[in-house]
Amino acid sequence: MNNSYGEIIKITTFGESHGLLIGAIIDGFYSNKYIFERVIQLKLNLRKPFTSLFSTQRKELDKIKIFTGIFESKTTGCPILLMIKNHDNNSLDYNNIAKNFRPGHADITYKKKYKNRDFRGGGRSSARETACRVACGALFNNILNNKGILIRSYIKQIGKLKINFNYWKNKINRFFTNIFFIKELKEYINNLKNSSNSISAEIITIINGIPIGMGDPIYKKIDSIIANYILSINASKSIFFGINFKKKNSFNIKDEITKFGFLSNNNGGILGGITNGQPIVFNTIFKPTSSTSKETQTINDKFLETKSKTFGRHDPCVGLRAIPIIESMISTIVINKIIKKKIYE
Amino acid sequence: MNNSYGEIIKITTFGESHGLLIGAIIDGFYSNKYIFERVIQLKLNLRKPFTSLFSTQRKELDKIKIFTGIFESKTTGCPILLMIKNHDNNSLDYNNIAKNFRPGHADITYKKKYKNRDFRGGGRSSARETACRVACGALFNNILNNKGILIRSYIKQIGKLKINFNYWKNKINRFFTNIFFIKELKEYINNLKNSSNSISAEIITIINGIPIGMGDPIYKKIDSIIANYILSINASKSIFFGINFKKKNSFNIKDEITKFGFLSNNNGGILGGITNGQPIVFNTIFKPTSSTSKETQTINDKFLETKSKTFGRHDPCVGLRAIPIIESMISTIVINKIIKKKIYE
Amino acid sequence: MNNSYGEIIKITTFGESHGLLIGAIIDGFYSNKYIFERVIQLKLNLRKPFTSLFSTQRKELDKIKIFTGIFESKTTGCPILLMIKNHDNNSLDYNNIAKNFRPGHADITYKKKYKNRDFRGGGRSSARETACRVACGALFNNILNNKGILIRSYIKQIGKLKINFNYWKNKINRFFTNIFFIKELKEYINNLKNSSNSISAEIITIINGIPIGMGDPIYKKIDSIIANYILSINASKSIFFGINFKKKNSFNIKDEITKFGFLSNNNGGILGGITNGQPIVFNTIFKPTSSTSKETQTINDKFLETKSKTFGRHDPCVGLRAIPIIESMISTIVINKIIKKKIYE
Amino acid sequence: MNNSYGEIIKITTFGESHGLLIGAIIDGFYSNKYIFERVIQLKLNLRKPFTSLFSTQRKELDKIKIFTGIFESKTTGCPILLMIKNHDNNSLDYNNIAKNFRPGHADITYKKKYKNRDFRGGGRSSARETACRVACGALFNNILNNKGILIRSYIKQIGKLKINFNYWKNKINRFFTNIFFIKELKEYINNLKNSSNSISAEIITIINGIPIGMGDPIYKKIDSIIANYILSINASKSIFFGINFKKKNSFNIKDEITKFGFLSNNNGGILGGITNGQPIVFNTIFKPTSSTSKETQTINDKFLETKSKTFGRHDPCVGLRAIPIIESMISTIVINKIIKKKIYE
Repeated sequence: MNNSYGEIIKITTFGESHGLLIGAIIDGFYSNKYIFERVIQLKLNLRKPFTSLFSTQRKELDKIKIFTGIFESKTTGCPILLMIKNHDNNSLDYNNIAKNFRPGHADITYKKKYKNRDFRGGGRSSARETACRVACGALFNNILNNKGILIRSYIKQIGKLKINFNYWKNKINRFFTNIFFIKELKEYINNLKNSSNSISAEIITIINGIPIGMGDPIYKKIDSIIANYILSINASKSIFFGINFKKKNSFNIKDEITKFGFLSNNNGGILGGITNGQPIVFNTIFKPTSSTSKETQTINDKFLETKSKTFGRHDPCVGLRAIPIIESMISTIVINKIIKKKIYE
Repeated sequence: MNNSYGEIIKITTFGESHGLLIGAIIDGFYSNKYIFERVIQLKLNLRKPFTSLFSTQRKELDKIKIFTGIFESKTTGCPILLMIKNHDNNSLDYNNIAKNFRPGHADITYKKKYKNRDFRGGGRSSARETACRVACGALFNNILNNKGILIRSYIKQIGKLKINFNYWKNKINRFFTNIFFIKELKEYINNLKNSSNSISAEIITIINGIPIGMGDPIYKKIDSIIANYILSINASKSIFFGINFKKKNSFNIKDEITKFGFLSNNNGGILGGITNGQPIVFNTIFKPTSSTSKETQTINDKFLETKSKTFGRHDPCVGLRAIPIIESMISTIVINKIIKKKIYE
Repeated sequence: MNNSYGEIIKITTFGESHGLLIGAIIDGFYSNKYIFERVIQLKLNLRKPFTSLFSTQRKELDKIKIFTGIFESKTTGCPILLMIKNHDNNSLDYNNIAKNFRPGHADITYKKKYKNRDFRGGGRSSARETACRVACGALFNNILNNKGILIRSYIKQIGKLKINFNYWKNKINRFFTNIFFIKELKEYINNLKNSSNSISAEIITIINGIPIGMGDPIYKKIDSIIANYILSINASKSIFFGINFKKKNSFNIKDEITKFGFLSNNNGGILGGITNGQPIVFNTIFKPTSSTSKETQTINDKFLETKSKTFGRHDPCVGLRAIPIIESMISTIVINKIIKKKIYE
Repeated sequence: MNNSYGEIIKITTFGESHGLLIGAIIDGFYSNKYIFERVIQLKLNLRKPFTSLFSTQRKELDKIKIFTGIFESKTTGCPILLMIKNHDNNSLDYNNIAKNFRPGHADITYKKKYKNRDFRGGGRSSARETACRVACGALFNNILNNKGILIRSYIKQIGKLKINFNYWKNKINRFFTNIFFIKELKEYINNLKNSSNSISAEIITIINGIPIGMGDPIYKKIDSIIANYILSINASKSIFFGINFKKKNSFNIKDEITKFGFLSNNNGGILGGITNGQPIVFNTIFKPTSSTSKETQTINDKFLETKSKTFGRHDPCVGLRAIPIIESMISTIVINKIIKKKIYE
């Protein structure tokens, strides 16, 4: 297993979904930066379960606490240890989770790879691990904001339903809710839930204010690193940069250049793996939540055939909670690329 | 710049498109494996310019030579040095390439990042660099084939034209041509060229015979590593795993499990970043060739406005030549994951 | 700062000497190994302060607790989090430690590098950090013992006093005491302490049972990795492999070979960075404890001249406590080299 | 095998002692630095065989040539390929080198690890590999000199013969000879040679002008990295930092501090793995040349007992040629630490 990411500032996450705690170590961070738990907490609340009507009903406080690396509210340069206690770690549903391999989940591959089963829950493969990424990203994001770099993700499409960008950009205060309570969506998602169904999501991410010249070709291009990190998020299955090139020809995609800059941004702000000063734009597609209350065909840990079914309420669109996770992963990439760029200046 | 890839067996590539040579070092390879230049050459010929009617007209022999790491035709365990001489390295088109920033190319970002310009050609940002990846991949591919692992990419769509999979699977001998000369395509591509246009390509890649349990969660999942490597290929803009999830709901995507195995492969052979024993399936989208014979608006190296245009014939669909490159990158990932899996057995 | 080590199994340590806790993450460890806190605790007790008459008088329980990565007493393959609470973390001696740069200590270099001062104590530069290395090494050591590999360090010389190897090898039960209470030493060390003095130590380390062929030339030779790890231990200033070559000529150092094996082991079990099947032998020299109760000339954090002095009892020979630390670092190297060797078999 | 070193600027070396060529790739170097082959050549000549009376009689031109990464005499930021052709690569002494395992050499460990034998010579384990390190170090050294950092090694002792530091510091122009032709040494070394003997060497290295605050604790301390690199040099067996601590007590080693700086430099310029602004000082001990013209007991590649003996003249003190190698390795460390220090400023 590999639980670290980050080229220069390195994050290591640990802990299981139904263990005592989850957490992260940040190594290589700047010294003498003010860090407050409440700033991290705000960001963390955006992905917290139970915040919205539609997400999973697990009751977690997701209360972050910093244990090392801080002295008198400032970083010392030493590794920063963040931890979150698990409260609701009683295994909910033994018959289903503990014994059966849930279709679409990593239960069967973890069992076959590691030859064991943490029957209390999803262990490390649970999306609960991403809370730690969000906490770390909050630190980086603050620094990036001060440099004028803004990383923002929005929902673009849920299943077949396209979301009007201009409409919700104005309506939604994204800093206090992790999804947006657009009336039109409510019925759509309720119907899914009532029919024991779940749905995919497409998230668009826009990075504004990113300097020219970031990215390390040939094999650490900024787009290839972004793809690497985004595809490490649970349930993500696809990424594309810039416009949908699939049906385009060169007449439509030219980002011609004038002395005032580029005339368009079809390439999503990246040429040859290096930022060109335009906003970086990419889209991520998340598959539908694998767990629904509909019964499915599967096998159990004795490899006998059985039926699997998630009791209780389920989260019909896992992609809705991915927004702060994407933003955190991108914060980590960007802060590291800024450091790398500085090296050779 | 970062010119290395590979988790355990490490490849470093070097050389510029219009310099003396290009090449690669393979470090950490097995000892006592038979290696013949002609086997590598065969694979290399598949991406060689001038092989097909439609690809770029640069005349390169692309003759591979091994200089170190081999003794009596067998690897010694020492680093293997492969090199290819550049023959056609006269800068073709000084007015256009040397002075102007070609729209859609990395000319402008390299100039702004590295504060210099190799006016002879694209330097390291040229797709010529990928010849070295293909050469290295040929070594790994041979070993994988002997383990029953087959990595194969096919063209799925060119622009809006879908390619019938079953049709060409039988017709095309992919081992001797790097694109397929389907009559129906000829006219389509000729029209593009004549109208100074270029077009995108979608390539499907299928990995058969891959063992269960490969991939290193949480942050070196096999899909996130594949995304990383594929997005490092010139002109690639998107990857997606399994089916097109964008418009699906969970009713359509269940990979239910019986005692005889999975009933479908919507997840593309990967669950939680670990192979589940089914074929890995993913699609890559390449943008249209940026250079066409159509004049475009740009600036030159004095930042004055000018027109850019590629003289001579151009390759209207750069994605067509990407097939052996994708296969080589995947070979590198898979051989490394096989090694990593072995560690803990 | 870089708080990780280990080529394949990776350890990250964290926490400050006078903070809430210290700890370590082990990432990439085997799954399905039985792990018990009490086995780690035994090893940890060997370096615990206050165990012997002569070591520092800080009262720490050094109670290890495992928080993640274990399920039903067995490792799951997930990251293992170990932590030790700091009990005696009141800053002892504010006038001396908090304000003054203690000569011979890292106070001044940390202050100048990180531009801050954790005035509670030595922070990360304190030898307390090594408790975490010992805890991790205990896990690896158990596995190595089962493979017949024994890593043992002994004190060879304290100051000018040579220790009779054969004498104490029989007398000392090294598994229950972290130094040995040889009567002859008692007076020697008491005299040092009474005269506010401290002394160097030379430790010999012998690795028995190590297989042939371990080590990765050219730049990860087993001896160069050992040197790397040993010189990362607080107060270590020198390492030498095999015999004292300084005054030898080739007549005296030949490790001639017969069909029954080598006739001597002057090279300390390593040729060209690879083990030759003989025991690995090396010596480490630790400088005298920098803190004594004798007053020394120094400057304070306002860069004004002052006197520094450690109140209370001090540990006159810091090298005595290094034995389990050396053994732990070597365990980490050896287990990783065993894994690397396996890769290519 | 691991053929790369360097934390940020990364060097990979390749090639065998009796193959076609040896060489190196430098990846991650600055762009827009002037680089001339003749500057590298000068440094390379210092370790070239046949330069002095006493070193090995292999006739090599050691002519360096740069193939990539340079355009119009300046670096582009792309990987720099350096290569040196092997001229004298006829295997000299088949009976001895090709079939027998030379005592003290890596012949037997390479054979047992890699299960093959390059019977033409020492392959990668030959000291010839170090020519590539010297070439790369020359590039870095130039940059460091411009920053006022001087890295210089001197011979301190040969066998039991101490070299008077002040004497030769004035007499020897170290920029044109790789050893110094002190009359007093001549007879001493000639006697060794005539008696088929060889001898150890102790080299002192002094780094002047190094800034405060370099080094990355806890596990990439500057001393632990130096130890790592120095012990990777052929025939090196020991390193020690600062004074000989073995017989010292704290009365003798205090580096007391005044407002004008340190009163002594017993710690060799390093406290807690971080430079304190004083010169870094360390000593390296090289074992006597293993090959002499004296017959020794060994086995051959069929594991039968035989005698080994080096015909022709031999180099009686391999440490004499290590000076430019040490300096090159240190250049690599220092330039990387300067880059790392810059990151957080």
